[in-house]
Amino acid sequence: MIKAGIVGGTGYTGVELLRLLAQHPEVELTAITSRGEAGTSVAKMFPSLRGAVDLHFTDPKVALLDKCDVVFFATPNGLAMQQAPMLLSSGVRVVDLAADFRIKDVAEWEKWYGMTHTSPSCVAEAVYGLPEVNRALIRNARLVANPGCYPTATQLGFLPLVEAGCIDLGSLVADAKSGVSGAGRKAELNSLFSEAADNFKAYGVHGHRHLPEIKQGLSFAAKSPVDLTFVPHLTPLIRGIHATLYARITHETDLQALFEARYENEPFVDVLPPNSQPETRSVRASNTCRIAVHRPQGGDVVVVLSVIDNLVKGAAGQAVQNMNIMFGFDESAGLTQLPVLP
Amino acid sequence: MIKAGIVGGTGYTGVELLRLLAQHPEVELTAITSRGEAGTSVAKMFPSLRGAVDLHFTDPKVALLDKCDVVFFATPNGLAMQQAPMLLSSGVRVVDLAADFRIKDVAEWEKWYGMTHTSPSCVAEAVYGLPEVNRALIRNARLVANPGCYPTATQLGFLPLVEAGCIDLGSLVADAKSGVSGAGRKAELNSLFSEAADNFKAYGVHGHRHLPEIKQGLSFAAKSPVDLTFVPHLTPLIRGIHATLYARITHETDLQALFEARYENEPFVDVLPPNSQPETRSVRASNTCRIAVHRPQGGDVVVVLSVIDNLVKGAAGQAVQNMNIMFGFDESAGLTQLPVLP
Amino acid sequence: MIKAGIVGGTGYTGVELLRLLAQHPEVELTAITSRGEAGTSVAKMFPSLRGAVDLHFTDPKVALLDKCDVVFFATPNGLAMQQAPMLLSSGVRVVDLAADFRIKDVAEWEKWYGMTHTSPSCVAEAVYGLPEVNRALIRNARLVANPGCYPTATQLGFLPLVEAGCIDLGSLVADAKSGVSGAGRKAELNSLFSEAADNFKAYGVHGHRHLPEIKQGLSFAAKSPVDLTFVPHLTPLIRGIHATLYARITHETDLQALFEARYENEPFVDVLPPNSQPETRSVRASNTCRIAVHRPQGGDVVVVLSVIDNLVKGAAGQAVQNMNIMFGFDESAGLTQLPVLP
Amino acid sequence: MIKAGIVGGTGYTGVELLRLLAQHPEVELTAITSRGEAGTSVAKMFPSLRGAVDLHFTDPKVALLDKCDVVFFATPNGLAMQQAPMLLSSGVRVVDLAADFRIKDVAEWEKWYGMTHTSPSCVAEAVYGLPEVNRALIRNARLVANPGCYPTATQLGFLPLVEAGCIDLGSLVADAKSGVSGAGRKAELNSLFSEAADNFKAYGVHGHRHLPEIKQGLSFAAKSPVDLTFVPHLTPLIRGIHATLYARITHETDLQALFEARYENEPFVDVLPPNSQPETRSVRASNTCRIAVHRPQGGDVVVVLSVIDNLVKGAAGQAVQNMNIMFGFDESAGLTQLPVLP
Repeated sequence: MIKAGIVGGTGYTGVELLRLLAQHPEVELTAITSRGEAGTSVAKMFPSLRGAVDLHFTDPKVALLDKCDVVFFATPNGLAMQQAPMLLSSGVRVVDLAADFRIKDVAEWEKWYGMTHTSPSCVAEAVYGLPEVNRALIRNARLVANPGCYPTATQLGFLPLVEAGCIDLGSLVADAKSGVSGAGRKAELNSLFSEAADNFKAYGVHGHRHLPEIKQGLSFAAKSPVDLTFVPHLTPLIRGIHATLYARITHETDLQALFEARYENEPFVDVLPPNSQPETRSVRASNTCRIAVHRPQGGDVVVVLSVIDNLVKGAAGQAVQNMNIMFGFDESAGLTQLPVLP
Repeated sequence: MIKAGIVGGTGYTGVELLRLLAQHPEVELTAITSRGEAGTSVAKMFPSLRGAVDLHFTDPKVALLDKCDVVFFATPNGLAMQQAPMLLSSGVRVVDLAADFRIKDVAEWEKWYGMTHTSPSCVAEAVYGLPEVNRALIRNARLVANPGCYPTATQLGFLPLVEAGCIDLGSLVADAKSGVSGAGRKAELNSLFSEAADNFKAYGVHGHRHLPEIKQGLSFAAKSPVDLTFVPHLTPLIRGIHATLYARITHETDLQALFEARYENEPFVDVLPPNSQPETRSVRASNTCRIAVHRPQGGDVVVVLSVIDNLVKGAAGQAVQNMNIMFGFDESAGLTQLPVLP
Repeated sequence: MIKAGIVGGTGYTGVELLRLLAQHPEVELTAITSRGEAGTSVAKMFPSLRGAVDLHFTDPKVALLDKCDVVFFATPNGLAMQQAPMLLSSGVRVVDLAADFRIKDVAEWEKWYGMTHTSPSCVAEAVYGLPEVNRALIRNARLVANPGCYPTATQLGFLPLVEAGCIDLGSLVADAKSGVSGAGRKAELNSLFSEAADNFKAYGVHGHRHLPEIKQGLSFAAKSPVDLTFVPHLTPLIRGIHATLYARITHETDLQALFEARYENEPFVDVLPPNSQPETRSVRASNTCRIAVHRPQGGDVVVVLSVIDNLVKGAAGQAVQNMNIMFGFDESAGLTQLPVLP
Repeated sequence: MIKAGIVGGTGYTGVELLRLLAQHPEVELTAITSRGEAGTSVAKMFPSLRGAVDLHFTDPKVALLDKCDVVFFATPNGLAMQQAPMLLSSGVRVVDLAADFRIKDVAEWEKWYGMTHTSPSCVAEAVYGLPEVNRALIRNARLVANPGCYPTATQLGFLPLVEAGCIDLGSLVADAKSGVSGAGRKAELNSLFSEAADNFKAYGVHGHRHLPEIKQGLSFAAKSPVDLTFVPHLTPLIRGIHATLYARITHETDLQALFEARYENEPFVDVLPPNSQPETRSVRASNTCRIAVHRPQGGDVVVVLSVIDNLVKGAAGQAVQNMNIMFGFDESAGLTQLPVLP
């Protein structure tokens, strides 16, 4: 049993971490912090956890996070970069679910996130926590930058193609759709039920923060710069991301075989049979990414459909998967729940 | 490990049984039947189960159900009464998730269900599977009649009051709201997304089949006839029942203490603190019933709020709970998943 | 053509007023105020009104509201009581969609609304704007208190019964369900999509502000004090209220005939045929209230089902109906849009 | 006043036609047919129309459709091609909301629709009813083929670009998302609330019937063959289509000016200001198409966002618009309702 702490546990990634860690066979949850809710019992704020989580939110200052083996940051961007260094120096391993350590180019990060980075050395050290790419590095990492939700669905869908070098890297299109929980548990007009229900819209068409993250990951995999048009949309789901990916084929390949081979040994990527079209609910509340690959009318365009639960494989579940790898647990420990359907 | 079979596994209670049994530590799922889908792989119909359930639907005739230790009927009403007797005589224990054995008065059953009962002796033998009332009888039952979803939420809410004799039994009101999955996985106009979404309505106001079941259960608990007005409503949820229960107080009682004492040792009934209002999502995908009791403005009306997931505590989860009791397993085995929120 | 102004037009009742008034044949919309959004074009905030509403939000101070014939307050509670007196003294007629003038007992109002009333004389003067009760008084009113949404649905459902004196006035139950737009366009956690979607809950069981308003109206109609248990619920609709009303019958009456006679000449109350169950969507975006009356199993309980669109008959539509009466227009002017279904 | 009839009025396009025509100042609705529902009152099936539509469904054989000035077919594919010729020969003008006359290449039509066309001469005569392209021809048409929903949103979005010749016609991508009402009012498992709610998926990736229709329209506008990858998705809305369109720019153009000029005089196409992102709800229940054009990061990809209400501009509203043109009415007659938001 290891001791785990959560910084900022009142958002959706926080409560999802709580759900997963409370059922994890190797983890004792010892601290959860919240500046705003210090003293409140977790089960009072989230009655779904009554009987399963006995903790109270505590003030970050008194949380004794440095006694933990691992600390998860489920905080707004910009907090982990301030607090992680001290924890690391106390020997605590850190998984950041925010974006602080995802972009290697600090200037680029500062442009997209609108703040000065206070810990560039941590950026250099951090391992990007996409296990399907970086499993070996994650194993020994002190600091893992847990990927964003769109980047997870998009990269897993494009990876076999860019690694195989069979598509035009200059004209990728990622048309992605997210459930509303992706916006977090924040009191904002745009996320109101009466604004988001029975409604569909694009947003961030001019540029979304996940664009540089996706480009970085795909360029690394391609060993060559990748250009991508990325359009995110808001759809009236609670959970779920559906990425529809388009690329022009430049070299003939058996696409189905390519995808099946690439993910053959991955516990959390499921390549569907030919002619499948994955539904977001087929991964609801689970850590699985399901992918289908198509070539409409036998033309030169490949269409990849990739679905995840944004709060699990797109956030808390992937964080637990990273923790499992870091501590040598079974990679699926605590992540065996089946999707909830309907 | 016991061997379990499911008759009629293509509906929502069927797929929920599959989700729960596939993760159950004491159960090997050996047969699942469907007349219409014989030969289809379960994982093809329900991709959420890919990798977890390896079975194909088989024709009921060749399913070797009589080799099972327990068989669940997740069929339309009227099938279990035909097929259960033979299984029972083969030594198989049966849990019927339909209504065939719920009503002890066969004539009453025939009136509400519009068919002739073919197995009255099974009705006599069957134990009504509400563990919070009949745990001892369930333990040795060969045949369990798993309660309906509305009856579960309603009886658990009223039970402490009728057992304590502190309310007027002649004027109960149960205003109940159900998610659309309660109507089953059937191609019917009323259950279409475009009919049921962004819409709310009552139905069955003149009389719903769950009315006699609720009255039977409460009258038994009260040892006296109970009269009830029961109005079910359809609300745009996938899963969830919320029963709002009204009764006139005839004897002063500490209501909160009454409820807490009644359910003190129940693993799946959670009495909330005073002034709480349970949400259906707080039990989503779990076997818990959460209850709050109120006395508005200190008047003589008691209001009980009771929520369950209709597919779990209202169907498949309660069936597994009954199986656990029947076979001497930990009552919570296979039912420890935490609710999915948000 | 009369000149109309709206104070506080950025909420849901405000935008609904805009939708209705922009299409009204007798109204010129001349001013709409918002402290926070002064200078913003209405069509920028609400693109649904592009091409139809050409106004900008203006600061209340410079809005020249006193040049209007009628001003609607679509503001939070407590503002109209401060600003209406000055407008009235300028000869402007006022319809308040908030609660400031609804409760005749000022002490009672102050208890429920938690503030000191600054204009008790306006309370005394104000006419409660339920046309089905007060049409004659509304005609000459300078100040109309537009009813709340729950009170509209509940009173219209109970009125025939309490006026006829055929039910027990001491044990009414109103179990009411509202769409989320009833909570207003406010950035609050409880109204987030990820909190309110796929979820159902009661709230305010201990006491909701609409309770005294309903009791006042029904007691007035009954000419006798009425006691009521009122439990509101939040259901995942955008628009719509469904009130399920229960009462004990004390005098035999032909209930269907009673309701049909009561509302025979009402343009916006539709009594459905026997055995009907109105859906909220059957009135979506329209000013109609549809009602059905039931007597389950011929017992002594009457069940009334009453549905409205909370933003129309429960707010902006009723306000326009009141304006039509006040200015001698056809009562249906500007309110003839058919419900949007599906 | 002209006399209008509807063949097949029990589906969603049928009831939407009823809503629009019942409020149309120039139309008397005289006949509505349904084989399955002959004798049923329209208002009984659609209570939203109580008080506004007084007709009963009649058997097609006795419906006296040949006494109408115009008949709308709101039928499944394959019926209008059988019945329209007789009506045309009786001097009745016809608008077909199904697909029977949309594709000029009969062999292509037969391949996609899986039936033999019984009236190729009508195909030749029919005018494709996209007013923004064919207004002059529609004016004198006897037979109008009302466009599909996806084709309307997609063509209106691409038209300015293909007409201007500024994009690569060989690599268009249309990623389209539709509400569930697009599947019609049919009792099908896929359209159930519990299947479609809180879920998102692509479908028809291998080839959708609207693909040849879109290609035909765009190729005609481009005067050159156009190649298109078209991926439709199902999203949990009742109404609404959002098309996200991608193309590679080949000639520099002021995109915003291009779009504004193209639609300057169109009553039902609204080009939004730069940097806008239209929501489907901004056109809910109205005949407007709203469009925004983007060029992310100033690259060589143009992204067009186009939204319509699939039942209005994508079906019944466009049919009424076509009728208005055919009979010389104001093109907006009966189509002035403002969108319903929220």
